[in-house]
Amino acid sequence: MDSMMMGAMRSNMMSMPDMAMMDMSVMQACMDACSACEQACTVCSTQMMDCSPACMNCADMCNTMMRSMMRMQGMTPASMMAMLDACIAMCQTCMDECMQHADSSEVCKMCAQACQACMDACMAVKNMMMAAA
Amino acid sequence: MDSMMMGAMRSNMMSMPDMAMMDMSVMQACMDACSACEQACTVCSTQMMDCSPACMNCADMCNTMMRSMMRMQGMTPASMMAMLDACIAMCQTCMDECMQHADSSEVCKMCAQACQACMDACMAVKNMMMAAA
Amino acid sequence: MDSMMMGAMRSNMMSMPDMAMMDMSVMQACMDACSACEQACTVCSTQMMDCSPACMNCADMCNTMMRSMMRMQGMTPASMMAMLDACIAMCQTCMDECMQHADSSEVCKMCAQACQACMDACMAVKNMMMAAA
Amino acid sequence: MDSMMMGAMRSNMMSMPDMAMMDMSVMQACMDACSACEQACTVCSTQMMDCSPACMNCADMCNTMMRSMMRMQGMTPASMMAMLDACIAMCQTCMDECMQHADSSEVCKMCAQACQACMDACMAVKNMMMAAA
Repeated sequence: MDSMMMGAMRSNMMSMPDMAMMDMSVMQACMDACSACEQACTVCSTQMMDCSPACMNCADMCNTMMRSMMRMQGMTPASMMAMLDACIAMCQTCMDECMQHADSSEVCKMCAQACQACMDACMAVKNMMMAAA
Repeated sequence: MDSMMMGAMRSNMMSMPDMAMMDMSVMQACMDACSACEQACTVCSTQMMDCSPACMNCADMCNTMMRSMMRMQGMTPASMMAMLDACIAMCQTCMDECMQHADSSEVCKMCAQACQACMDACMAVKNMMMAAA
Repeated sequence: MDSMMMGAMRSNMMSMPDMAMMDMSVMQACMDACSACEQACTVCSTQMMDCSPACMNCADMCNTMMRSMMRMQGMTPASMMAMLDACIAMCQTCMDECMQHADSSEVCKMCAQACQACMDACMAVKNMMMAAA
Repeated sequence: MDSMMMGAMRSNMMSMPDMAMMDMSVMQACMDACSACEQACTVCSTQMMDCSPACMNCADMCNTMMRSMMRMQGMTPASMMAMLDACIAMCQTCMDECMQHADSSEVCKMCAQACQACMDACMAVKNMMMAAA
């Protein structure tokens, strides 16, 4: 994400008491990981029927997660936590499915890696929120 | 949702051991409530800045929830539970926001009602899944 | 769509000179057809690889079309026309694909019917807009 | 987008006669511009009511455009052209709106720039398709 756009988001966050202490670089890394995961899952969903439904579910959840982090004015700590948990769970489901054919499909392997990276990034935001609470 | 389409979905579900016992009418009611909530939130998001970000977040989450229930082949009980919790939490956030101006805005009032109905429908699916587990 | 929600949308439309003459029942029918088509395409996208990518493209386009009609404050006649053309073209692509296996798949047959209905409903909005211009 | 993922997409494209001649770097630039525009519009949609509906419409259209380019197996030249036209028209609508307050809002200025870049990238794909036809 563009650094000027991040500056605009930072000032939004500052107006929210619960969020003012949050490290924007951790948020930015999570939004980028969600975007990369949505893209990997979207490509992977066209490759084989086995993982396609999980990939589509994961693409939609990652897009919803990313957008919600760009619209933090409409989030509470409780809904943010629940969304992060859902995104982590959906990435886990998709990764488990794609790992089953990662040896034979380069796309599935990349998709599983993008899911793992997105899970890690969501977990980092969760940890930051729990430390700030 | 069309009854013939529901028939097609029912046969999908039957192939999943964990889901075979689920009452499709409860699933159908939840998908319909998600769709109605997405629509109400989308209209409401154009009315005033106060609730608009929460309405957009809720519209996206409800759409993702509905679609995931139509692609159950790509869900596990764990990811399904986490998604339902996220949808309930997001509807709660949006409803709390819209209720603050439900007296002055008919659209916010309807949006809050759609959020409540969606929460109830998601809770019914959760209860059914826990009873089946 | 709920009739009270339609009332709220009607008053939005009245404030737009180009749109004030439009018959809301034609708009409502189009939004409902987009929603039904998104749902049919989403279910159909999980059935077989042949039509799955076209069904996913169509589901996303129909959702975007429906939402844009619910946020007419952010549309111009030019962008509205272009979006309707894109939705019609995408439904045509998906219908052509699904019709190739409509004899063997009940879901593809229903999906093709939903695409046709959505095309017809978008065309009706186009005709209304051209008559009003 | 990841270069290995682009390699996977390139081999998909090669199997489509009409698309085999297309320069993947032009496609890649367009998908990246759609993603950047979706993100800018999503942030901008939370800033002020004037442009919010146009920004939301544009964010959804750009996401749909990006995803469809990642699922080219489900596109035809005709639906691809119509989608590009719709994306260009929607970016124009959003840019025109955001330019009206670009002097007072840094976010609107960035959003308008992202819309312009997305329009240019879509136009480049259109030109490439017309040259290849």
